[in-house]
Amino acid sequence: MKDSVSGINYRFTDQQLLQEALTHRSLGANNNERLEFLGDSVLNLVISSRLYDVYPDAQEGDLSRMRARLVRGVSLSDVASSIGLGQHLKLGEGEMKTGGFRRTSILADAYEALIGAIFLDGGYASCQTEILRLFDPLIENLPDVEELKDAKTRLQEWLQARGRPLPVYDHFREEGADHAKKFYVQCKITDGPISVEAAGDSRRKAEQAAAKDMLGKLQANDTA
Amino acid sequence: MKDSVSGINYRFTDQQLLQEALTHRSLGANNNERLEFLGDSVLNLVISSRLYDVYPDAQEGDLSRMRARLVRGVSLSDVASSIGLGQHLKLGEGEMKTGGFRRTSILADAYEALIGAIFLDGGYASCQTEILRLFDPLIENLPDVEELKDAKTRLQEWLQARGRPLPVYDHFREEGADHAKKFYVQCKITDGPISVEAAGDSRRKAEQAAAKDMLGKLQANDTA
Repeated sequence: MKDSVSGINYRFTDQQLLQEALTHRSLGANNNERLEFLGDSVLNLVISSRLYDVYPDAQEGDLSRMRARLVRGVSLSDVASSIGLGQHLKLGEGEMKTGGFRRTSILADAYEALIGAIFLDGGYASCQTEILRLFDPLIENLPDVEELKDAKTRLQEWLQARGRPLPVYDHFREEGADHAKKFYVQCKITDGPISVEAAGDSRRKAEQAAAKDMLGKLQANDTA
Repeated sequence: MKDSVSGINYRFTDQQLLQEALTHRSLGANNNERLEFLGDSVLNLVISSRLYDVYPDAQEGDLSRMRARLVRGVSLSDVASSIGLGQHLKLGEGEMKTGGFRRTSILADAYEALIGAIFLDGGYASCQTEILRLFDPLIENLPDVEELKDAKTRLQEWLQARGRPLPVYDHFREEGADHAKKFYVQCKITDGPISVEAAGDSRRKAEQAAAKDMLGKLQANDTA
């Protein structure tokens, strides 16, 4: 027997829970935000537990990076799309017109809410089955742990491995109004002449861009 | 029958897991960091699920703030202390000498690792029993949701409720070396003459301090 969302294998006893999970806040009070709060925690535990078992030699830092990759918005929205969740979402008129059912964050939130609803309806084991059915293939295809590290971490480790000083990030300018700010940063290594500048719409993004650029330059010089 | 940590009600089948949970990374490879990764997720779900049930009318934002208060380092280390976890920790010599067994972060991490160990040994339900035995009293004594909001949020809501413009934070100075930086921020409301300055050892802390000061000033003026 099929559920009303054909891509879900789980069958709800309480159909109300499924309906609540599909209801975006643009439709008012009985929306999926509370279920999303719950489902986010369920998803985290199911994924953490699986990674712990599948990678018995991975250290905490690598496990965290793998989990972050799996539960980030774009991964969840891909999973939501793969089970056709978008067509079943209930959105307010404004969101409908602007194509909200295709938006990454709305899909990702709805997937977490769906997991929260399954948790209340069928318990932890049911969530585990439903989540791993879709996430085990993603876990198998995770990129190498080195690739999962962000640019600042990779730059720092590259320098430390060579006994060199840590990079210094200097935020020398911020531009624009509060909601559309642009951040400028300079990254330099104190024992050498190389410095790079980068910009981004947050301090973090600017630093990551600068670190990536810096690492590229250092590696090019290293093999030159 | 009692376990080797007398404050824990759960009895381990696999004593190795308990020993691993008690072993700090200063003792080498077989430490509790992987169990901490797992236990952190278990704790999050058990607390999220309880808050969801106990506060059927709370919105997602308030549930998140309540959870953050319960699982922050100082709460976990209090809980760890209350079951006497500190005396049973296995630390390297350096950590022993510097009183590491009393350090908040080490105790908090060990408590999460203990929960991870119970999860592997006895499953989710055992964790739930052990966690809620200690956390239900804390949940009952949570401060009012307004008190749980940080200063920036409270300032913003206070202004919005009065139809006034949002505050602007201007980071006008950073001082000191990278590991001991001091951040200075000015907070002003564009429709009035009041402005305040504050400092902190992170941008976030400086902004929170400024927001708190600003809100105090605005409320004092309001009732004057």
